[in-house]
Amino acid sequence: MKITLVGTGRVGSAIAFGLTINPLASELLLLNRSREKAQGDAMDLTHAAALVNSNMKIWAGEIADSKDSDVIVFTASVPFRYPGQTRLQMGQDNMPILREWMPALAKASPNAIIVMVSNPVDALAYETIRLTGFDSTRVIGTGTLVDSIRYRALLSTELQIHAEDIRAYILGEHGDSQFAASSIAMTGGERFYPSDTSRRMFEETKAMGYEVFRLKGHTSYGIAMATITILDSIVYDLRHTLPVSVLVNGYLGVKDVCLSLPAVIGRQGITRVLRPTLSDDEQAAFRHSAEVVKQTLAEMESGC
Amino acid sequence: MKITLVGTGRVGSAIAFGLTINPLASELLLLNRSREKAQGDAMDLTHAAALVNSNMKIWAGEIADSKDSDVIVFTASVPFRYPGQTRLQMGQDNMPILREWMPALAKASPNAIIVMVSNPVDALAYETIRLTGFDSTRVIGTGTLVDSIRYRALLSTELQIHAEDIRAYILGEHGDSQFAASSIAMTGGERFYPSDTSRRMFEETKAMGYEVFRLKGHTSYGIAMATITILDSIVYDLRHTLPVSVLVNGYLGVKDVCLSLPAVIGRQGITRVLRPTLSDDEQAAFRHSAEVVKQTLAEMESGC
Amino acid sequence: MKITLVGTGRVGSAIAFGLTINPLASELLLLNRSREKAQGDAMDLTHAAALVNSNMKIWAGEIADSKDSDVIVFTASVPFRYPGQTRLQMGQDNMPILREWMPALAKASPNAIIVMVSNPVDALAYETIRLTGFDSTRVIGTGTLVDSIRYRALLSTELQIHAEDIRAYILGEHGDSQFAASSIAMTGGERFYPSDTSRRMFEETKAMGYEVFRLKGHTSYGIAMATITILDSIVYDLRHTLPVSVLVNGYLGVKDVCLSLPAVIGRQGITRVLRPTLSDDEQAAFRHSAEVVKQTLAEMESGC
Amino acid sequence: MKITLVGTGRVGSAIAFGLTINPLASELLLLNRSREKAQGDAMDLTHAAALVNSNMKIWAGEIADSKDSDVIVFTASVPFRYPGQTRLQMGQDNMPILREWMPALAKASPNAIIVMVSNPVDALAYETIRLTGFDSTRVIGTGTLVDSIRYRALLSTELQIHAEDIRAYILGEHGDSQFAASSIAMTGGERFYPSDTSRRMFEETKAMGYEVFRLKGHTSYGIAMATITILDSIVYDLRHTLPVSVLVNGYLGVKDVCLSLPAVIGRQGITRVLRPTLSDDEQAAFRHSAEVVKQTLAEMESGC
Repeated sequence: MKITLVGTGRVGSAIAFGLTINPLASELLLLNRSREKAQGDAMDLTHAAALVNSNMKIWAGEIADSKDSDVIVFTASVPFRYPGQTRLQMGQDNMPILREWMPALAKASPNAIIVMVSNPVDALAYETIRLTGFDSTRVIGTGTLVDSIRYRALLSTELQIHAEDIRAYILGEHGDSQFAASSIAMTGGERFYPSDTSRRMFEETKAMGYEVFRLKGHTSYGIAMATITILDSIVYDLRHTLPVSVLVNGYLGVKDVCLSLPAVIGRQGITRVLRPTLSDDEQAAFRHSAEVVKQTLAEMESGC
Repeated sequence: MKITLVGTGRVGSAIAFGLTINPLASELLLLNRSREKAQGDAMDLTHAAALVNSNMKIWAGEIADSKDSDVIVFTASVPFRYPGQTRLQMGQDNMPILREWMPALAKASPNAIIVMVSNPVDALAYETIRLTGFDSTRVIGTGTLVDSIRYRALLSTELQIHAEDIRAYILGEHGDSQFAASSIAMTGGERFYPSDTSRRMFEETKAMGYEVFRLKGHTSYGIAMATITILDSIVYDLRHTLPVSVLVNGYLGVKDVCLSLPAVIGRQGITRVLRPTLSDDEQAAFRHSAEVVKQTLAEMESGC
Repeated sequence: MKITLVGTGRVGSAIAFGLTINPLASELLLLNRSREKAQGDAMDLTHAAALVNSNMKIWAGEIADSKDSDVIVFTASVPFRYPGQTRLQMGQDNMPILREWMPALAKASPNAIIVMVSNPVDALAYETIRLTGFDSTRVIGTGTLVDSIRYRALLSTELQIHAEDIRAYILGEHGDSQFAASSIAMTGGERFYPSDTSRRMFEETKAMGYEVFRLKGHTSYGIAMATITILDSIVYDLRHTLPVSVLVNGYLGVKDVCLSLPAVIGRQGITRVLRPTLSDDEQAAFRHSAEVVKQTLAEMESGC
Repeated sequence: MKITLVGTGRVGSAIAFGLTINPLASELLLLNRSREKAQGDAMDLTHAAALVNSNMKIWAGEIADSKDSDVIVFTASVPFRYPGQTRLQMGQDNMPILREWMPALAKASPNAIIVMVSNPVDALAYETIRLTGFDSTRVIGTGTLVDSIRYRALLSTELQIHAEDIRAYILGEHGDSQFAASSIAMTGGERFYPSDTSRRMFEETKAMGYEVFRLKGHTSYGIAMATITILDSIVYDLRHTLPVSVLVNGYLGVKDVCLSLPAVIGRQGITRVLRPTLSDDEQAAFRHSAEVVKQTLAEMESGC
């Protein structure tokens, strides 16, 4: 198993460290605009790996070295410019990077699964499908998985039940139009009934990315662990169902946009997108998310 | 953390091997009617442990050695006498063993959590509470956890979703009156809708213990892993919700009997018993299970 | 990765359970003279696997099903007939089983690595090379790995150092002529100086297999874990050096016999046999082991 | 088990992420000069932890919150000012931080084991013993563990043997006067004979910290993993022998200075310092390291 990780900033290098501790591949290639940074990380991680029961080749290289990767993880990104930066502005920053890297990466690894981490993730996942011509089942955006684990972490403390047993999903856009799909949530054998507390927790969840950003200047470990969980399910063909950004084509009348829904993830990528029975409000919120993401994408395109 | 394991037959020694590979304790004491068997297992497991990154003392001893255990796992049992043996007959075989060991074990470790594995597990868990005077939150029967994982394994193959994401519960008696609580089942973000296939799978599930018994002469690994999962949740205070046999006092009008319901398990034992909203049929099945277990227990008592 | 496990007795099924907890393969096929026993184990293990974060297909079948296995683990054996049974008698019992199974297994999986666990392991590993025509680098006998971990476990308790850091090797025959290679032993940064205690421990080590056998009627978990450690090093190409039974061709003048030496184990099997610098006594003991194993093999051949 | 981590810069936060993935404690407290940074990390790590099978409380606080910690990990440090910064200059930067934090930390957790990570680690470990009055067995500097794993990683690639089986030790100062103790090195059952290649690798090892620094602007993952390995051995009382900085009192005539020697690490801290039999050159190098560290400390003291 060969994993190529594009971008070794805060998020990318945290993913690489997680993969060193919990080795999922026999080869981990690091690509970065500054190759020196990638080389430094590869060396540092190779030292760490000497204390792990694995035999993973960790190295830095060029796109040509990524040939025949099984999985490509894309984290390259312009740094946030300021706290209030909009998704649109991020998109205008990151789209050129995507357009520069992605076609060559796809050409070098025509059978790879692509995991998109950079933001705005829904727009970039969509654009990745377009740029690569890959079947949409082979492009997975981390989407609202990170929002869902933030929400579950809050509920876990409140309910004193392990987060893994709290099957609560944030769906839609990885952005402000996301929503908690309470009608399909379960907490370990009981239906989940929304309350003032849970609604407050959803509001906290939405604000939490900004809050972590405000406190430490970036977010890294939550999104890194979400990515590793997706990679684990791909590498071992685990068939876990996770809320991730996938191409939606027909669910609730929404078409031709990437948004997060619970999806089954295995060695072939997305093996199935679930079609949960949402409440009327949740359906409306999902359709609204679709509009927002499409709008962002259209504006990004026109701005590039 | 000190775990005392009572009974080193097929199930007990498989649990001990699992705990050697996945070490949850600093001390594992093995007790067995034949102390030589326990000593042989302790030696053999100590050799295995030399290849594991742990430092667990594994030894064999007497009840006195179990003093101040944090957890007591009870697997002592008369071997099945014949395939068609009833739960009542098993109970009449095993009740004397329980009455011989349990009071002394409880006296030596007054703060322990007890995990009951021997059958008929619901009756023996109930009797354990009576014999020890322990708060019912500290007595956990493996109950229908093993039935639930058998059911989930079948559904997993059918649905091509990881068993962990199939939140389907077999509840009630660990025995013929058990039922699938379909109205609270979820498969990774979708409601679970019972079908002819799922109903057939539930029937297969009920027959599966007997089938494994018929094929290999005993069952061991499924129940061992179920027990280890419960121990994991206790030792690390994980608060997982698992369908296990607990004292029911008031749910659906059922009182004073041990039956399986989803329960939250942590360092203090059962930290909460969930109260799922069951369908009318399921409620009736649960009440029926209660009658069956009470009847078995009454007949066991009169027969001892 | 496909692993075929031949023989689901005490040792084989313990290996299978270990592989279920610590999943090294995507497919585990169980073969056994009584196919029902293998089917029962496969079902039981599949239930256990529902509680593990893996997706391993565990099933029972015929030799034809083992086609294109990456690794074949051979544990098939006639049960010990009595405590004092000699290696020669074991050999005469097990050689016919080997000759029945091995050629067909090798034909079905011409590129497999074979791990021999059955006894007398040195003779059976040698015969396996002869029967299959496989390059000797692809046939590994568990050899004195199990003796070495027993010795290390004793030293670990005495020295209060983790067994993994006690690099003490039992080499030569997996049998009475084995010897402790003290001149190459290290205990975590210090030379190992033999003492009356360490000599007593070596004597205890030699007797320990018999002692476990006397106490519990068989040995299983130590040898199972030793086998799993070898498999781990194969599957992940770890290049661990372990004392295992390999074809010796020239070391210390010994030729054409399988005996245990420290060897490097990876995805291609034995990637290198080390040539430790032994003391004169140890060299003599190694040559003596060679004679004993050759003699056993010659007598087995004539007795078959 | 409560671990307090002081300093959440590059190294500290990598340790915290490693502990989240591989949870060794029930509680992880983060302290940092900028409390906001620590709070941001604690939130971010709590989100990551929702995807791990653990129940670790991760939070940020003040020294008072560290009360009764079992282990204190000290990573607080002024950032490197420039590539050519000397250990003396680092010492003069970091000594005031140590003096500010350490007495209060020790007072709040009088029974803690302290793991010193900040540089110059030998001098700071020594000063920690002086400032806290702790028994020297409870103060462990990461020392040359990180150098040893760098050296082993290079040798591993050369020899194609797993780094764990390459028992090669860099001893003495974690700095330019360190040396490779070749006379006690083993590579999985063979003596290690120094060669031009191994000598070149030692020179590369010494330069490697600077090289990683040059390439990526800091070092983090190797030292983080080394620290986690020490913590693992403490928390589970593993008794691993690791080259770490300990108070030397009498070995080879060296006294009253912290330097790296192989030491056994368990729940009580340093349970034994090994006394390897070094060659004359190695002995001289060890004594030279002692002089260097003492000199640095004396100059630091006079400069503060």
